[in-house]
Formats: sequence, structure tokens, C-alpha cells
Amino acid sequence: MFAPLVNDSFLRACRRQPTAHTPVWLMRQAGRYLPEYLATRTRAGSFMGLATHPELATEVTLQPLERFPLDAAILFSDILTVPDAMGLGLSFAQGEGPRFAHPVRDEAAVAALAVPDMQKLRYVFDAVTSIRHALAGRVPLIGFSGSPWTLACYMVEGAGSDDYRLVKSMLYARPDLLHRILAINAESVAVYLNAQIAAGAQAVMVFDSWGGVLADGAFQAFSLAYTRRVLAQLDRSVPAIVFTKGGGPWLEPIAASGAEVVGVDWTVSLAQARERVGDRVALQGNLDPMVLFGGEAAVRAEARTALDSFGQHPGHIFNLGHGIHQHTPPEAVAALVDEVHRYSQTSRTVSAAGK
Amino acid sequence: MFAPLVNDSFLRACRRQPTAHTPVWLMRQAGRYLPEYLATRTRAGSFMGLATHPELATEVTLQPLERFPLDAAILFSDILTVPDAMGLGLSFAQGEGPRFAHPVRDEAAVAALAVPDMQKLRYVFDAVTSIRHALAGRVPLIGFSGSPWTLACYMVEGAGSDDYRLVKSMLYARPDLLHRILAINAESVAVYLNAQIAAGAQAVMVFDSWGGVLADGAFQAFSLAYTRRVLAQLDRSVPAIVFTKGGGPWLEPIAASGAEVVGVDWTVSLAQARERVGDRVALQGNLDPMVLFGGEAAVRAEARTALDSFGQHPGHIFNLGHGIHQHTPPEAVAALVDEVHRYSQTSRTVSAAGK
Repeated sequence: MFAPLVNDSFLRACRRQPTAHTPVWLMRQAGRYLPEYLATRTRAGSFMGLATHPELATEVTLQPLERFPLDAAILFSDILTVPDAMGLGLSFAQGEGPRFAHPVRDEAAVAALAVPDMQKLRYVFDAVTSIRHALAGRVPLIGFSGSPWTLACYMVEGAGSDDYRLVKSMLYARPDLLHRILAINAESVAVYLNAQIAAGAQAVMVFDSWGGVLADGAFQAFSLAYTRRVLAQLDRSVPAIVFTKGGGPWLEPIAASGAEVVGVDWTVSLAQARERVGDRVALQGNLDPMVLFGGEAAVRAEARTALDSFGQHPGHIFNLGHGIHQHTPPEAVAALVDEVHRYSQTSRTVSAAGK
Repeated sequence: MFAPLVNDSFLRACRRQPTAHTPVWLMRQAGRYLPEYLATRTRAGSFMGLATHPELATEVTLQPLERFPLDAAILFSDILTVPDAMGLGLSFAQGEGPRFAHPVRDEAAVAALAVPDMQKLRYVFDAVTSIRHALAGRVPLIGFSGSPWTLACYMVEGAGSDDYRLVKSMLYARPDLLHRILAINAESVAVYLNAQIAAGAQAVMVFDSWGGVLADGAFQAFSLAYTRRVLAQLDRSVPAIVFTKGGGPWLEPIAASGAEVVGVDWTVSLAQARERVGDRVALQGNLDPMVLFGGEAAVRAEARTALDSFGQHPGHIFNLGHGIHQHTPPEAVAALVDEVHRYSQTSRTVSAAGK
């Protein structure tokens, strides 16, 4: 049905198999730092206009690949499509973050919550299939979802938050309500990701963007336990990546969650992270997106430092430690991708010659 | 000159000496969650009106001690007094965070920067002395400053930031400029804290509120190195506390920085933190401030969990892992302080009886 894969370095690294160079892709690589993205978005009228039209989602997903020799594509979509399909009424006001018209804050709202009809998310699965066809085997396509906890943050807060006061108040005062939300989210995310895999996704990633705001103990019980539930239900013919922003304290339990790859942010030393997780998982990360504002020499130097820190082992997927910033100069991305490929290839040659 | 100290449990815990109960105080304990604070602030006209009038700073510093049997007082002031004295023009707009009229963003601004005349900060030292007299030996008084890096964040950004793009761009593109700012900040903070000690502060705390946003490597070079420089210059007749929000990844090097006490946030397990730092330092923390929104039973249960996690060893100062939230119900603080005292005292008795 789909063309055979030409560049499989990303999938090989996910499985900790040797690759000729360290594969690289960037979180939010299809995004506002690219003028061509902004042009398509203007045509679409809105962010959700882009996400809900498979041909437009396909167009923007492929844009960064036209500029940079990235080793993976990631579905253009939003982590909040699932709660939107639950009927919470997602909107993006001009210049603001996402907002839900019907946040889930009391017993009645929690009782009314259910796994959404996946037909409402057909636009996502259609986009996956459309992108796979458009990629024609160049690089693999990653599907994704928010983690059960991260979705719950938005569902309870109704929007982004500085302090997560509403969702944490529920966590401490009414843990039963939050557990019910999380159980429904876990079931929904599993069904959602399996449908993406069926539609053509060649890897899936769970974004636990807000796991790192939880206290030790609460993270394990309210975030990781439900991510694990998702992973246990997934079609495991494709690799799964779990990325917890601020998840450094819990690398070992995250690595034992059943994912093939663990994403790490820039506060973590790749050398120490690799030591802590051993051969259980591959690691993805972890450049501070702000390095891309430091000029070409700094970008190349920091890329080399990260590659050296991980060292000569299979199982590294180069990435940022968070989504790329909207004001990033595209030339910095070009330098980064070039340096990762060039330096990792050279290091492998030197290392092989030394043996 | 000052009355002898009655309750020395905080100072003893800083030195890892045994105490009858675990001492407790809360970051921002004198603050907006107290109606009497809001009344004084209204009289003062503004936040800086409070901070710059020693009699008003004294009044609000003592307010939480009238309500709760806290084991330490902390100077009421702001971390940005030092850059304000450098001439950056601090202001607090209604309902917004702090702002500098003259941020430090280019070579010329960095060249013009100097250690401020401490006479401009006399109001801080006068407040320290006034508070010491008003405390009359009830509990010790903690003085404080922002860390060199945290001050630099505000000085370069000109205000709070989500992504620290300006200061991190400087870090990666012009590290020489940032190092120059940090060197001046370190010198200024050392002189500032020594003057607080001379005025009567019985412990000092360095708030590295934004250390945790740095990448591994950058944290050591741009934050910890300069905090260490401060500590090396301090009058060590009083204990020093270093608190790095998000500093979990670097507990060992922070514990080796020369401070007697390391503050930790709620992402860190106290048991693991204690194991990592050994007997080198006392630990301060680490309840998630959001626990205080969970109702009395949850507050008491989470307090016991934190105390049990640290275990039966000297050297624990109970605190939150961040400043108390402005909407915190004061009754929750009463329950927390009561539970920390009651449960830690009982645990010591049980533990002693078992020996």
C-alpha cells in the first residue's frame, strides 16, 4: 500500500540498531518558524483549519523535509484533538493558547466523560495516510498523542496554566475524580494511537508535556501509571516514544514503562541518562531549543557536545528537549541537522578505525 | 544588642544537629494569602513601598508568626533590590510582575554595570535590624538574595520570561558578556548578604529560582559557579542555604558548593536526595504548594509522607518546594505547621523508644 522506506535510520535507532549517522528530527519541526508554514496557515484561516484538513496537514508536515535532510516526519496535529472529540469545545483565540469551552471540574462533568467516537478524529487518521503517501518512503512518519495526565491538565484547567492549581487541587482533594479522568484518557489515547498506526504511522510518541510539574510520588501514580496503561494496549509492531518534559528524576521508571524510546530534556546529561537506563531503551534529545539563537558556531559546538555526551553506542535520536521556538532562524536548523549528520558519521568512522 | 534566641530548632537543623521537632517555615510566608498583609500593603501603597520602609517590612515579616508557630522568619524584601540599586529602574505595574526600565542587553550596558553602592540598599539592612529587634529572640531571621544567574535572567530579559530567550541567546552567542554580568552579580550578592548578616540576619538564603531552566553543563558554568563564588566570600558565622528550583539533576554539585543547607523542590524524593547528598548538607523542602489546596486531611497526610521520606535523621527543615500561592487558605498553613510539629515530635519519641 505504501512505498518502501528509503531512510530507516530513525526506526533503527529506536530499536537500538547501528546507523550510519545519528538520525535527527525536531519537535514542532513543521511550525511557525517557517515562512511557508505561515503562508499555508493563512490560507487555512486557523490552526485547527490546518489540522482538520488532511491535504493542508500533509503540506505543512512535508515543508521542513523540503528544507532540511531530517530523518523523520511527524504528523501535523495538536495534542488536544482527543478532548475536543470528547465534546470539550476546543478553540484557539488569536495570539493565545488553546482553550476549552467546557472544562471538566466537578463530579457531574467527570461522570459525563467517555472515550470519544473515533469517527470524530477521522481527519487525523486521514492525514496520517495522506502524509504516508506524500512521503513516498523518504523517511518514517511519527504519530502522536498527549499523555493521559497532560490531557487532564488542559481538560481540568480549561487552558494552559502557570501553576496547575485546579488540576492539582483535584489531585489532592478528589483523587478519585482525577483517576476516573485519567482512566478514560488512557483508554482514549490507546485507541487513538492504534488508529494512527493502522492508518500508517510508523512510530508513535506520547507527549507527557506536563508530567514534570508533579511531585515525586504523584508523578508515578497520576502520570506514569496511565502512560504505562496506554503502552500496554498499543500495537507494538511500531516503536513507542515517551517524552516527559522535566522527567529527569524518573528516568528509570519511565524507561521501564514499556516504551522503546525515552525523550529527555536539556537538564539531563545524555551520558548520565544512558548510564541510568542502560540498554533498556533508546534516548531522544536533548538540545535546549534556545541554542538555535546562539549563531552557527554555537549550534555546531553544542550539537557535537550532545553527540559526544551520548557517545559511541547505538540508540540515540537527536532532537531538541522541547518544541522549536517560533522565532528560530531556519538557517540555525540547517546548521544543526548538517552538524549532527556530519559529526556523527565522522565519529563512527574514527571509532571504527580505532578498533 | 539583640535578645537571646528562644527557639533555635531552625539553626540547629541547618547544622544537622538534633531537634525536638522538625522546624518549618514557608517561602513567601509573609504574603498575599494573608488578609493582614494585604491591609498593610494597601496602607503602603505598593509592594516596593512595603519593602523600602523598614517599619512596614517589619510588620509584614512578623504577621505569619502571629498566626502560626513557625520556626523561622524571613526578611520581607524582593530578589530584585540589587539590580535596582545598580540603576536598572525596577517597577511593579499593577497586576503584573517586576519590570526593569533599563535591561542589560548589549556590550555598552554590560560595560556600564558595577557593584552598587550599598548605601542605596540601606533600607534592606535597616529592615533586618528592625525585624531582629521586633522578633526579640522568638525565632531566627533569614536574610536572602537572588542568585547571580537568577538576577541576570531578570536583568537581561527586563522582566519575567517563559523561555529565557534573551538571556540564553546571550549565553550561547556572547558568553563573555554574560560571564561579566555574573561576576558583577556574584560580587554584589556577596557584599549584600554580608551586610545583611552584619545587620542581624542569622542565616542567609540564595534563591536560584531560574537555575533549573539551564541545560546540563550551562547550569554548572553559568549558575552554580557564581553561587559558589558568593558562598566563598560570605561571613560563615551564619549558615547559608542554596535553593535551586528544578535543581534536582545537580544535587551533588550543589551540595558541594559550600552551603550548609540545600533547598529542594517537590519533584525530588527526600529519601533519594538525602542518600545523594549524604551527611554533607541539611535539606530544606519540599511540599508542592498546591497540596495546601487539597483540604486538611490531604495536607496532613502529605506532610507525614514528606517527613517519613526524609526519615529519622537530623538536618531536615520542612518547607514548600516554592513560594506559597496567593490563594492559599490560611487554615491549610495552620494544619501544615501543626502536623509537621506534632508528627515529627511523635516520630522522634517512637524512634527513641525503639532503640
